[in-house]
Amino acid sequence: MTTGYAGLQSVIWADDRLDLLDQRLLPEEIVYLPLTTVEEVWEAIRHLKVRGAPAIGITAAYGVVLASRDERGGVSDWLARVLKAAEYLATSRPTAVNLFWALERMSAKAKTLAESGRDLETCKRELLEEAVAIQREDEETCRLIGEHALTLLKDGMGVLTHCNAGGLATAKYGTALAPIYLAKERGIDIRVFADETRPVLQGARLTAFELQQAGVDVTLICDNMAGMVMSKGWVDAVIVGTDRVAANGDVANKIGTYSVAVLAKAHGIPFYVACPLSTIDLGTPTGAEIPIEERSAEEVTEGFGKRTAPRGVKVFNPAFDVTPAEYVTAIITEKGIVRAPFSENLKKLFST
Amino acid sequence: MTTGYAGLQSVIWADDRLDLLDQRLLPEEIVYLPLTTVEEVWEAIRHLKVRGAPAIGITAAYGVVLASRDERGGVSDWLARVLKAAEYLATSRPTAVNLFWALERMSAKAKTLAESGRDLETCKRELLEEAVAIQREDEETCRLIGEHALTLLKDGMGVLTHCNAGGLATAKYGTALAPIYLAKERGIDIRVFADETRPVLQGARLTAFELQQAGVDVTLICDNMAGMVMSKGWVDAVIVGTDRVAANGDVANKIGTYSVAVLAKAHGIPFYVACPLSTIDLGTPTGAEIPIEERSAEEVTEGFGKRTAPRGVKVFNPAFDVTPAEYVTAIITEKGIVRAPFSENLKKLFST
Repeated sequence: MTTGYAGLQSVIWADDRLDLLDQRLLPEEIVYLPLTTVEEVWEAIRHLKVRGAPAIGITAAYGVVLASRDERGGVSDWLARVLKAAEYLATSRPTAVNLFWALERMSAKAKTLAESGRDLETCKRELLEEAVAIQREDEETCRLIGEHALTLLKDGMGVLTHCNAGGLATAKYGTALAPIYLAKERGIDIRVFADETRPVLQGARLTAFELQQAGVDVTLICDNMAGMVMSKGWVDAVIVGTDRVAANGDVANKIGTYSVAVLAKAHGIPFYVACPLSTIDLGTPTGAEIPIEERSAEEVTEGFGKRTAPRGVKVFNPAFDVTPAEYVTAIITEKGIVRAPFSENLKKLFST
Repeated sequence: MTTGYAGLQSVIWADDRLDLLDQRLLPEEIVYLPLTTVEEVWEAIRHLKVRGAPAIGITAAYGVVLASRDERGGVSDWLARVLKAAEYLATSRPTAVNLFWALERMSAKAKTLAESGRDLETCKRELLEEAVAIQREDEETCRLIGEHALTLLKDGMGVLTHCNAGGLATAKYGTALAPIYLAKERGIDIRVFADETRPVLQGARLTAFELQQAGVDVTLICDNMAGMVMSKGWVDAVIVGTDRVAANGDVANKIGTYSVAVLAKAHGIPFYVACPLSTIDLGTPTGAEIPIEERSAEEVTEGFGKRTAPRGVKVFNPAFDVTPAEYVTAIITEKGIVRAPFSENLKKLFST
């Protein structure tokens, strides 16, 4: 099913160790860290060697597996070690929802196994299988998003994306980039324009990098070039990821997404948002209820180790913006493509 | 008339020397170079210590003055030295139209003076007066642009600008920033949002700097934040400069200007272009005839002194874009404000 995947995988289970792509070194170096202890996994998550909510969750699950391989004592000692490892790993990043979700799932599985009276070897094997399942399910979700998204694209099209919603952040494929990888597997030509995405340049450092690695035709542009590129007729669709979709279809995503959406509408280009169902929050009525984090001025004024603006200058640096639903052509999930009216159709998605 | 100017002046004639602001050191250091020889002026222009077409022309004119102060010989020796200095200074930047224009004007004046039989002291004094006139005329042009532009603004308004069309590039005031400086002189509060303007960051390094120096309320944003700032209702007008206006009102300016214009239109915000008449080229029918320079990939991939994108990645890096006339609310010149239909009204501007 996935033999053709041309992207880099950020988390690879290698039988008795975890090979983790050190994303801090990208795009200059591709280094896989061989992790064999839970302490090494904690350190890797803590120091941002792995990023992307799904990738962090998968890494933590394998961290629990590494702790569970200790041979000392019986099943109850094993369970104690596993639960302690999960608690410990939960302290690596304080606000990572996927991290907590994955660790709770691993702990619950370990408890069920221990209580079922299975022997130590079986417990160990089945706990590993749970981590593998978390990874496979994420891959399958991304692949399904990609399958649905690909029905909206045709050979020879140009796609513009903003920030990074790619394979590096997930098990494989990513969300916004999933149709690009599937197209690559199937010999369908899609050209991609990657906004560099100031201030932190995820588009330049990650999106352009992972697509280049996969042999995709990718062109890096500054964010302010998106309008010109669209006006030249080079963009047939915009596809972005999202951090949260409100019940009415408003979309929070990396700062700059809203500008791209307005430009797309002005040029008659469809604007698609790709995300798993877990990102759609029916408890948030509209985008107005989504808090927008403001980050430090230094990200803008000395983002790359060099001061490029006057000292003391006032800076507005929101991390995200909200794109109103009226700019969203469709939201692409693992359960299919949702169009307006979003309030109605997003609700249906969860009830079917 | 200009006593209240709060901005930094980039070129200052100091009786027997030229004090030139070293713009390469901005925004980190404010250093005026005391230049006393034509060779020093050549070197300063060549090595981009002065930038902005009008500022370069003014600097070169004073360079000729410095050469003309040599006391040896009579008027014919003086004329020979002046013409030689002008020829020499013309080699400092190969494509700077304002540079050649200013040097030709100084040479012509020197010839007229020498031929009129005036004594050496008079020749020297009147040639200095020509350079001062070039500087004063540029200041007056900018001030008039500012006066007209200011009629479009009100106390408490927010203005967004892109790139740098400010006082540093001209004698004083600049073009797009001229109304901001006039407002400051008169106690009218205008808040400015300065796009940082990737890839070369003129907005961060120059616009935010010169407005901060002048005590203007300026907020630096990344280019991709313009849409969000507009959606919040913080922007009442966009004002930008331009490199060339075509006969139909299409406007070539720094890359990203077109995106800003589209965003302004979508938010119902007027989009103004400020420029001297000399920038309007009736010989260029439309924006399609304006060649767009593409610059090196490295400006985008290693613009901050550090590589921030994968090696070998394809980059599209146009220096300018063209904003179609339909997005331009008005063009503000020293002779007044021009609105659509531009083909008709720009022509009238030159015939009245």
